[in-house]
Amino acid sequence: MIDGAELVIDALFGSGLNRHLQSSVRDTLSFARRRRVPIVAVDVPSGILGDSGEDFGAAPAVCTVTFVRKKPGHLLLPGRDLCGEVVVADIGMPQGLLDSLAVDTWENTPQIWQPMLPKTGSAAHKYSRGHALLYGGYPMTGAARMAARAAARIGAGLTTIAVPEEGFAIYAAALTSIMAHPLKEHQDFGRLLDDPRYSALAIGPGAGVSDMTRALTLSALRSRRPVVIDADAITAFAGQTAELFANIHGDCVMTPHDGEFKRIFDDSGDKLTRARRAARESGAVIVLKGADTVIAAPDGRALINGNAPATLATAGSGDVLGGFILGLLAQGMDAFPAAAAGVWMHGAAACEFGLGLLAEDLPELLPRVLRHLNSSS
Amino acid sequence: MIDGAELVIDALFGSGLNRHLQSSVRDTLSFARRRRVPIVAVDVPSGILGDSGEDFGAAPAVCTVTFVRKKPGHLLLPGRDLCGEVVVADIGMPQGLLDSLAVDTWENTPQIWQPMLPKTGSAAHKYSRGHALLYGGYPMTGAARMAARAAARIGAGLTTIAVPEEGFAIYAAALTSIMAHPLKEHQDFGRLLDDPRYSALAIGPGAGVSDMTRALTLSALRSRRPVVIDADAITAFAGQTAELFANIHGDCVMTPHDGEFKRIFDDSGDKLTRARRAARESGAVIVLKGADTVIAAPDGRALINGNAPATLATAGSGDVLGGFILGLLAQGMDAFPAAAAGVWMHGAAACEFGLGLLAEDLPELLPRVLRHLNSSS
Amino acid sequence: MIDGAELVIDALFGSGLNRHLQSSVRDTLSFARRRRVPIVAVDVPSGILGDSGEDFGAAPAVCTVTFVRKKPGHLLLPGRDLCGEVVVADIGMPQGLLDSLAVDTWENTPQIWQPMLPKTGSAAHKYSRGHALLYGGYPMTGAARMAARAAARIGAGLTTIAVPEEGFAIYAAALTSIMAHPLKEHQDFGRLLDDPRYSALAIGPGAGVSDMTRALTLSALRSRRPVVIDADAITAFAGQTAELFANIHGDCVMTPHDGEFKRIFDDSGDKLTRARRAARESGAVIVLKGADTVIAAPDGRALINGNAPATLATAGSGDVLGGFILGLLAQGMDAFPAAAAGVWMHGAAACEFGLGLLAEDLPELLPRVLRHLNSSS
Amino acid sequence: MIDGAELVIDALFGSGLNRHLQSSVRDTLSFARRRRVPIVAVDVPSGILGDSGEDFGAAPAVCTVTFVRKKPGHLLLPGRDLCGEVVVADIGMPQGLLDSLAVDTWENTPQIWQPMLPKTGSAAHKYSRGHALLYGGYPMTGAARMAARAAARIGAGLTTIAVPEEGFAIYAAALTSIMAHPLKEHQDFGRLLDDPRYSALAIGPGAGVSDMTRALTLSALRSRRPVVIDADAITAFAGQTAELFANIHGDCVMTPHDGEFKRIFDDSGDKLTRARRAARESGAVIVLKGADTVIAAPDGRALINGNAPATLATAGSGDVLGGFILGLLAQGMDAFPAAAAGVWMHGAAACEFGLGLLAEDLPELLPRVLRHLNSSS
Repeated sequence: MIDGAELVIDALFGSGLNRHLQSSVRDTLSFARRRRVPIVAVDVPSGILGDSGEDFGAAPAVCTVTFVRKKPGHLLLPGRDLCGEVVVADIGMPQGLLDSLAVDTWENTPQIWQPMLPKTGSAAHKYSRGHALLYGGYPMTGAARMAARAAARIGAGLTTIAVPEEGFAIYAAALTSIMAHPLKEHQDFGRLLDDPRYSALAIGPGAGVSDMTRALTLSALRSRRPVVIDADAITAFAGQTAELFANIHGDCVMTPHDGEFKRIFDDSGDKLTRARRAARESGAVIVLKGADTVIAAPDGRALINGNAPATLATAGSGDVLGGFILGLLAQGMDAFPAAAAGVWMHGAAACEFGLGLLAEDLPELLPRVLRHLNSSS
Repeated sequence: MIDGAELVIDALFGSGLNRHLQSSVRDTLSFARRRRVPIVAVDVPSGILGDSGEDFGAAPAVCTVTFVRKKPGHLLLPGRDLCGEVVVADIGMPQGLLDSLAVDTWENTPQIWQPMLPKTGSAAHKYSRGHALLYGGYPMTGAARMAARAAARIGAGLTTIAVPEEGFAIYAAALTSIMAHPLKEHQDFGRLLDDPRYSALAIGPGAGVSDMTRALTLSALRSRRPVVIDADAITAFAGQTAELFANIHGDCVMTPHDGEFKRIFDDSGDKLTRARRAARESGAVIVLKGADTVIAAPDGRALINGNAPATLATAGSGDVLGGFILGLLAQGMDAFPAAAAGVWMHGAAACEFGLGLLAEDLPELLPRVLRHLNSSS
Repeated sequence: MIDGAELVIDALFGSGLNRHLQSSVRDTLSFARRRRVPIVAVDVPSGILGDSGEDFGAAPAVCTVTFVRKKPGHLLLPGRDLCGEVVVADIGMPQGLLDSLAVDTWENTPQIWQPMLPKTGSAAHKYSRGHALLYGGYPMTGAARMAARAAARIGAGLTTIAVPEEGFAIYAAALTSIMAHPLKEHQDFGRLLDDPRYSALAIGPGAGVSDMTRALTLSALRSRRPVVIDADAITAFAGQTAELFANIHGDCVMTPHDGEFKRIFDDSGDKLTRARRAARESGAVIVLKGADTVIAAPDGRALINGNAPATLATAGSGDVLGGFILGLLAQGMDAFPAAAAGVWMHGAAACEFGLGLLAEDLPELLPRVLRHLNSSS
Repeated sequence: MIDGAELVIDALFGSGLNRHLQSSVRDTLSFARRRRVPIVAVDVPSGILGDSGEDFGAAPAVCTVTFVRKKPGHLLLPGRDLCGEVVVADIGMPQGLLDSLAVDTWENTPQIWQPMLPKTGSAAHKYSRGHALLYGGYPMTGAARMAARAAARIGAGLTTIAVPEEGFAIYAAALTSIMAHPLKEHQDFGRLLDDPRYSALAIGPGAGVSDMTRALTLSALRSRRPVVIDADAITAFAGQTAELFANIHGDCVMTPHDGEFKRIFDDSGDKLTRARRAARESGAVIVLKGADTVIAAPDGRALINGNAPATLATAGSGDVLGGFILGLLAQGMDAFPAAAAGVWMHGAAACEFGLGLLAEDLPELLPRVLRHLNSSS
């Protein structure tokens, strides 16, 4: 039947299918694929689960035509890779009906958070743009430095890294407008928080997995400021999440990759389900990182990000992302849009560079992204 | 009345009004604003005080037409933001009459100080271009390094940072053509001043608020060289201004932001009044920083700066400004034009970059500003 | 005879000649050369050995026309310089006959290894792109830092330098996304290897010629991971090669320059012969560096590289090359194509810069090379 | 007489005048100048001494027309500034006559030294391009680092700075491909010289004025390698020149500015005379720095350089110049052309940047200069 065909239209199953394709269907699609006949899928390629992007045996399409709006399965891996180019067709659904759909999942685009980006008015001074404070570890010092640079480039008025005294000279020699503050003992970090001008905090990059990191994280949370909890500060709570979750408040963002996620959260279910459940359970905005990063809020809203190139799979990339979010929080942006904007700008900055990217390039690429956003707003 | 109007001309009050607008006037203007009818103001928008830019309830104009020359209210905030584009109309006032106006306040433009910029003749050597000396603190080291880089980029022949011995390695590793001089004890700073080739001094960035900073500042002033007093060196004299003012001489520039200003000066009155009074009282040229920086001389002259973008509200920005002024003083420029030129170039450098600016970018952007100035001179 | 000639065709001897030209022939060719009559050679200029590029008295040609494919003598020095432009003429040899030639030597071109370059799919994370581990010496610290930067730029997901504790601060201050790991004692290096995520190792740049370097190299080899053995790690085995060769396995690359080569290998014969023999004897892929670098595999295959400009003769150039190869190995590429790709990209990066090149420029030039390769694949 | 003139031709005196202009002549020329009548001078403006550029009261010309070739007075200050544009008119002097002039002074142009620039053939390796060795002082570390970077950028195959152990970490953290070698005691410097691969040496930048610097300089000279003696290594011999001059050999270059020059040489006479006498007396090539740098050889040849912009009057500029010369010496270039080429490239690099130049910019600008030279050779 397919012999001689120039195009295969796959409209066999809708996006609701959640079992493996029967063998006859798979054989037919495989045959098309081997013959290199292009497949155009309707809704989603048969075998892709529309709610999660999970694959039950789909053949890759060159193009997928869907209706009204994208589904999670068009955005989450492996679905995204199997859909090819996704075209959203307008079928004339009335706006009233659309609004009544109670949608709680969207693709992460600037339209969502651009109106909430910090604005710097003519009367601004550095303190009105916020003071970001990071804990910087030792002996791993580069991670916090990259995060700090990201926070500063995205607009925090001041950025300080509090560092153990033994690492102070390393930080100080490598920083210029970003300040290094030496801590004689780790309790000094809590004392710093008596200064109300620190407007957002971050802990994790290079912090080490230790009791101390746990204590610092809790003291950060107890100060009731916006906090980014990343990397070792996530892992440090493995098996001890109760105390963590009890202290988390609405302006807290956690940024685990898959490995960190499963150390403290239930890892079952698809990515959207996992991130949403973790956000609800912890009370934090969850940024579950990857090529299809999911940003989930405790109230159930979730965004799926699609602009991250593969080159972001490089050491320190996550530290920079945490820094971007920190810098937006420091300027007073709410946690959910700040997380979303940080994730998107991170991807956009990487796209500015292309192959050969190192994480320390990213903060330096951000000004171009900010200019593009500004000229399109 | 406004219904259906395409334009509202606000010629209700002149620039001399200094009380709140009556409610009927405000209601009318607010109505126009809500209807988005553009307002063109004559002289200043009604409610703006022409001498100070203070706002007694004005509606924002898209354009303000004034006569002969700009008034302070067109340049100072919040007036500047409410005037929209300012057009100066020539009403044929004879030059003789203009000269007789005894004007003592101007907009800060290159015309004012460009003829006084240091010239480097073919017979110049590094010492003829001056030797700038800064005190560099510890543990905050980046501030003085940025100020030094600014002084060097703007043309000081040599630039040295005198630093406490414990911080020496940090400074030395981060500097190249700028020299770090280790101080075994802080009295060594005064001994350095026995070398007459140091042609201008700066103290403040990262110095710390302490008796030592006060002592260093006084020894700098007593050497009778041009001195920039900035940041912690201002705050250190809170409550002890008598000794400071007694030692200030004509080539001293103080560069407080609002917070530092009010620690040592009377904070009452509008910005122009405050800066002028502080200059007269202290004997120093006062650079009262902000988006509408005022530069005031002890003899009553004052300039209002208008080219600073909001991105300058970032940590270290003030340190770079102090460095620019220091570098011009070191080359022999007088304090008032040096302060004015430094402020303007600081704004112009920031404009070269746009969003995402860090203070350490500014000295590296200065060469472009110098080239533009040079090609237009 | 040559008087008045506009062109001399040198078709006197084929590429098989392996003795000095007789004096009458040399006199004739020398005469042409003195008269500046251009010489076009057929096969190779008479006097060049086709298998090795050795010169038995050839006169330089402006152009050499050869058949079917280039011979080693067109690629190896001094032959390469004496051939002028090499044109390969198609003489209609059937493909079947070509394939039966059992060729084992090729010019190093992207066609050979481009299909094997690491691909970073959308599901990649930093660990799936590999973790490169280098030993970094003291007091020479720049060599390992350059190699590490090269490994990171070419795509290793993570890059760590293990360093003696006394040198830690120097490394840490100069690195950002690349990590420095302090070693209390050199045995800690072996303990690091218990972490299976380190996917490739390098030892040599700045390591020092010592028993310790030998011990570290052996422990690296015994971990059965891909290893790059460079510089001091080669020299350290002078006179003690038996233990080295006994531990080398298929994914080991050694990168000697001529001086290092002859410390541990038989130096007799032409360059291709030397490199092939060393690869067979040691079991490692041998990169015998120079302007005509030869890459030889233990199974007899060999490549000759031709894109290296003379500017690569600069300190640290070899360290960067080792780092490129390391970064490709870390991503799972086989040793022979990884070595070949590293050598070619090293040359291409240098060509992007031109005169005045320093070795630390090379990793920063690589992204352009990667983009060119990508757009031509 | 001048009233109403549109042009004044000053052909009053030739270049041989060596006394002050009589007052009537000066009055006439001053009158023209006040009236802004342009003056065109024949040979040199009257009052300029053709052999030295000394000024006995000349009025500045807009243009000077001279014959056959430029005289020193067209190139040396203040003459150069007073000549305006210099046009050399061909008066048909036969080449034989020209050659018989026994000229020993020339303008420094690439034609003079370009054929002698180091060539890097395809068989080059880093050691064949030479190994430059500098002594790097403490606590002033930036000077030697800039000189080393200059030597490396201009093509030295390897560059090493030998540094006192206390300063080692500062040097090592700031260098990458340039090597820092720690000296336990200063005698270790002499021991380094046992390695014959060090092909040229430099001492002076940041060395300090001390007995040790004198000892190091003498041990450098006694090694009979090409040596650049700069800065503190010049001053250290004030009053003790006999031992210095006794050890100087043909490949030694001394690079004093005016202040350093007069500490060890007779300061009487014009600049050309002073430099020539110092070269003859010391046996070194003398680079007497300034806007009109003179390069003089012991055999009496001298060059006057004219491409240095005023922006070179900045700290560290001289260190970079010393490094350029060192890098050329290390590659085997003779001292006189190496000094001349270094001086010219230094000026050309500064011209690439314009206003706002710092000395550390210069080595990074050199690759452009090398490319321009290469494309014009």
